[in-house]
Amino acid sequence: MRAVIPFKKNNAKSRLRALLSQEEREGFAMAMLNDMAEALLGSGCFKVIDLLTTSLIEIKGLNTVLTEKGLNEALNEYLEKMSSHSMDEPVLIIMADIPLASIKNISDIISFQADIVIVPGRMGGTNALFIRNPSSFRVDYYGASFLKHIEIARRNNLEIEVSDSFNLSTDIDEVADLVEVLIHGKGQAAHYLKKIGLTLLESNGRVGVKRK
Amino acid sequence: MRAVIPFKKNNAKSRLRALLSQEEREGFAMAMLNDMAEALLGSGCFKVIDLLTTSLIEIKGLNTVLTEKGLNEALNEYLEKMSSHSMDEPVLIIMADIPLASIKNISDIISFQADIVIVPGRMGGTNALFIRNPSSFRVDYYGASFLKHIEIARRNNLEIEVSDSFNLSTDIDEVADLVEVLIHGKGQAAHYLKKIGLTLLESNGRVGVKRK
Repeated sequence: MRAVIPFKKNNAKSRLRALLSQEEREGFAMAMLNDMAEALLGSGCFKVIDLLTTSLIEIKGLNTVLTEKGLNEALNEYLEKMSSHSMDEPVLIIMADIPLASIKNISDIISFQADIVIVPGRMGGTNALFIRNPSSFRVDYYGASFLKHIEIARRNNLEIEVSDSFNLSTDIDEVADLVEVLIHGKGQAAHYLKKIGLTLLESNGRVGVKRK
Repeated sequence: MRAVIPFKKNNAKSRLRALLSQEEREGFAMAMLNDMAEALLGSGCFKVIDLLTTSLIEIKGLNTVLTEKGLNEALNEYLEKMSSHSMDEPVLIIMADIPLASIKNISDIISFQADIVIVPGRMGGTNALFIRNPSSFRVDYYGASFLKHIEIARRNNLEIEVSDSFNLSTDIDEVADLVEVLIHGKGQAAHYLKKIGLTLLESNGRVGVKRK
């Protein structure tokens, strides 16, 4: 069984620019990537964990695969290569910006019996996809990718399960999302935000984030 | 075992006013309440399900308890009454605006063994609280209530478990949240939004909601 994490470091997490400098955004993206690597490695479920990335990055325990392609093209090429090299083994595609993911969350995903396990992100996204036979599936991220992936699976007569997890649904794109990391995070991403001086801000019963 | 749903109908869901009229907001709030009632009744776990509300509302299978108090005061008075009437049985406090909640989600919460089970909502909220001994706990909603409830449990030496569910974490407050109902909802709330003409809007890879 394999896992693959697509990752873009350059100008990562641009929607956080109102609060974080480019250097901080890249540092935070790397911290979230390290959290995901730890959860995947800690699960002990994967023979190989590939990091599919546009920059030369080394993470202990991960196998760097360089690509210059966009997310969909890079992942579909990856799935095709797995099929053509007779490596048609199950693969978990998981995003690098889900810093609440725990080891248990990872092993829960792969414990389902269906052909495809899909983990929704917020606002129609897909945060993880477990594909039992990579030759049978192609991805289509951006927009309401959750609905697109359900439709692709149906068109290919694949059985689908939806995995229900707050931790895994919490991808970090906008400043408001940092609240979740500060409240629920236990890993490097939460540590990084605290280190650069972010803290919770409460006003009128609502919760936000500010610099100390 | 009891469940209690706090509910306010008048001017419900005011943060949806950019898209929904007051009548629609109240209709949608009632549809969400009905979804929650169905999930609780369907679980078969509760001897009594109380609806703690400021308006005279009848929902089949629920016991209406009128109150004029605010959320915290009303719930803490409810917990105190349970204790003083020797009804110190477990109680699930659950919000009325979590329309993705399934029967399985409800039975999962009460399957934990801890003294307190807390289900986070987004942005620091608490969407459900399972309290094994009502005399041992008081609630403190608004703001980062998740952290406040963890702290209250610790102060009372109560063991806590956090239940991890995307469905249960998805409380509907803002227009953007309606995306989740349209994509993942299967009950009356999703049906209501479609009936009044709401549909998904995709632009630049992001998903929103519009009137048809």
